[in-house]
Amino acid sequence: MLSEIKADNPKQLRAYLDSRTSDISSDILLKVNEIIKRVKQEGDAALKDYTRQFDGVEIENFRVSEKEIDDACALTDKKFREALTRAKDNITAFHMAQKTNSYLMEREPGVYLGQRVLPLASVGIYVPGGRAQYPSSVLMNVIPAKVAGVKRIVMVTPPGKDGRLNPNIAFAARLAGVCEIYKVGGAQAIAALAWGTESIAPVDKITGPGNIFVAAAKKLVFGRVDIDMIAGPSEILVIADDGADPACCAADLLSQAEHDPMASAILLTTSRSFLDHVNKELKRQLETLPKKEIASASIRDYGRSIVAESLEQCIAYANAIAPEHLELMIKDPMPYLSQVKNAGSVFLGYDTCEPIGDYYGGTNHVLPTGGTARFASALGVDAFVHRSCFLHYSKKALQQDGDDIMILAEEEQLEAHARAVEVRNGKN
Amino acid sequence: MLSEIKADNPKQLRAYLDSRTSDISSDILLKVNEIIKRVKQEGDAALKDYTRQFDGVEIENFRVSEKEIDDACALTDKKFREALTRAKDNITAFHMAQKTNSYLMEREPGVYLGQRVLPLASVGIYVPGGRAQYPSSVLMNVIPAKVAGVKRIVMVTPPGKDGRLNPNIAFAARLAGVCEIYKVGGAQAIAALAWGTESIAPVDKITGPGNIFVAAAKKLVFGRVDIDMIAGPSEILVIADDGADPACCAADLLSQAEHDPMASAILLTTSRSFLDHVNKELKRQLETLPKKEIASASIRDYGRSIVAESLEQCIAYANAIAPEHLELMIKDPMPYLSQVKNAGSVFLGYDTCEPIGDYYGGTNHVLPTGGTARFASALGVDAFVHRSCFLHYSKKALQQDGDDIMILAEEEQLEAHARAVEVRNGKN
Repeated sequence: MLSEIKADNPKQLRAYLDSRTSDISSDILLKVNEIIKRVKQEGDAALKDYTRQFDGVEIENFRVSEKEIDDACALTDKKFREALTRAKDNITAFHMAQKTNSYLMEREPGVYLGQRVLPLASVGIYVPGGRAQYPSSVLMNVIPAKVAGVKRIVMVTPPGKDGRLNPNIAFAARLAGVCEIYKVGGAQAIAALAWGTESIAPVDKITGPGNIFVAAAKKLVFGRVDIDMIAGPSEILVIADDGADPACCAADLLSQAEHDPMASAILLTTSRSFLDHVNKELKRQLETLPKKEIASASIRDYGRSIVAESLEQCIAYANAIAPEHLELMIKDPMPYLSQVKNAGSVFLGYDTCEPIGDYYGGTNHVLPTGGTARFASALGVDAFVHRSCFLHYSKKALQQDGDDIMILAEEEQLEAHARAVEVRNGKN
Repeated sequence: MLSEIKADNPKQLRAYLDSRTSDISSDILLKVNEIIKRVKQEGDAALKDYTRQFDGVEIENFRVSEKEIDDACALTDKKFREALTRAKDNITAFHMAQKTNSYLMEREPGVYLGQRVLPLASVGIYVPGGRAQYPSSVLMNVIPAKVAGVKRIVMVTPPGKDGRLNPNIAFAARLAGVCEIYKVGGAQAIAALAWGTESIAPVDKITGPGNIFVAAAKKLVFGRVDIDMIAGPSEILVIADDGADPACCAADLLSQAEHDPMASAILLTTSRSFLDHVNKELKRQLETLPKKEIASASIRDYGRSIVAESLEQCIAYANAIAPEHLELMIKDPMPYLSQVKNAGSVFLGYDTCEPIGDYYGGTNHVLPTGGTARFASALGVDAFVHRSCFLHYSKKALQQDGDDIMILAEEEQLEAHARAVEVRNGKN
């Protein structure tokens, strides 16, 4: 059952959500800093040692051979391969539209300037280990990089207990266009990507989810390389009118709740009887859910509901909360979309359940959490490019604008700036 | 004189540049964390106290009145106002071309998806105090935010010893379109922007340069709000052929060297005699420079030169170094531009000295330093927007794609995800 919050205090709700985010302890940061230092100094030898220690396996060559990828792919299910291939096509189509062009402006004769949009040279994607691995995450991280034009896309992932690669992950990596796969995980993998070792050349950016050690390592190598956001627990906020189906609404709330006991599921509705129905459905559906324990804890600790006066009020609350996922279970959702300012991804109408976006629809599932949707965005093509400006002035144009530039430099008491103009315009 | 590095080891050069970047000490981080905590708890009272302590003035109202801005603007020079207004027009025109559109795709009947590009609701610009203040920085930070469509643009800047606003800064702020100005600086100003006080409402993002305390505060509030990059010392790298003018080249190197004893000025050339001439010119021009001491220290400690075999080799080195500013003092620079992969901003040809870009040409002067141009970009419109995805599936479309989605969810052992589809498609 979703605890109810009175409609007059959405700020309280935001404060409660803030309280979920926990900083990385300095203990962990220190430990991880040691790992990074050792990998930087000892390279592959340190990687081997940490892999023995943390993954319990002996790895001779971190690089996964084409043969091993072939063998792993052969173990996958045909229906899975077909579904993932269709998902890839949808995700690619959506991200192709994100490409931005370089541009050139000619302001006057002799003056031209612009911005070149360039793919990063190399990126590393972290893929977590564990029993259930997420091929969908491989697509969501690799496809935008591929669309951006990144030439070298590297994947790192911890080896299984048997020293092998997860078959579904292997297939997803090959499908999406990963160039190199290394069987190494944890903070040591992040260190290798940032600093390089004998067998792994360094990259310019690291993305992908991971446990607290991976997150700490990403924080620590940031600056040396770029990183994506560090994701917090999953969030879903559903806004429903009284035409929505309570069973569908409950199922959608549970689809996030099953991720993590700290995941948050929030329902904002204009109808108290709808809320009552959803609470009943939650109870009923939880009974038979394989991840019942996780989902129950999430609903109990972080499930919330508000009965609001209007859909407009619901959306104002959602903007204050800035959820990762926002479902508008509303009969006619498009007019309300323009009121939404802060949400990572918005799911429109009664039938667009969030898992469509997690796997298949085409939008990215790597999204800002913890209220950062106020300023942050879904992972996309722009995360894998950088922009470089350029400017050209002819001698004549500099003669025309030179006095202005010198005035501005002199007002800032930067005389050498002024002189770079003066020496050209022949006034010294 | 520029110390020479042999052409066979550009990696050594990168390592030397890396060694310049210094981390913020934990002493400073702790001190600044205290300041942030107090501002969060005590609001304006803490701001007043810190302003008394650090700026030596008593401020009753942090908000600068329209009357005070009028009075300050009246003290500015007409030629300065005119030059800055023309600069503003050029900078605005360049950034207008960076706007990206929202998009909508219709994949098949009932399936539409897209991405909305939304301006941030509010941003705060930090403007440092001190004797020489930089109106150009006000334009470079505020104009992209304005072009992005940010409604509330707030400026914070420490009060002068007389408790007043710097006139040139006041004029630049009004010209660029700042909505609110507050006379408060240092870590306390950053804390106020992130958490809000009685007189200053919080913002979603903070940009702008500052001293080490401001940088530490930005690092600490990141996550609560977004921040721009934390800039290191300035860098210029000039690639010159033997047709370039040594006096111009020396003047350009000095225009960065005068910023900071840690600024770096590097010359890559194919001509040893050109290098010799530049070294003579540096000596000569330094004699009469007002900031001679700073510039001499920078040239002595961080000035470097390489005589390379070809312009192509020069550019390969530049890509490895990834400088903030790159001048191509080459007769025909455009064919070489496409070889440049890593540089914040590129200045083309013999007459495009870097100060044109600092003030006037239109490109942004807030640029990545310390080798981060490998993955980071100039400040631009994209820094002041966020993107929100949306997705719509009709009942029929979900029936068509539902099996694929359920297969993918089940392979990831996320049964509640599958059930959100199942409950709609009526198979449970």
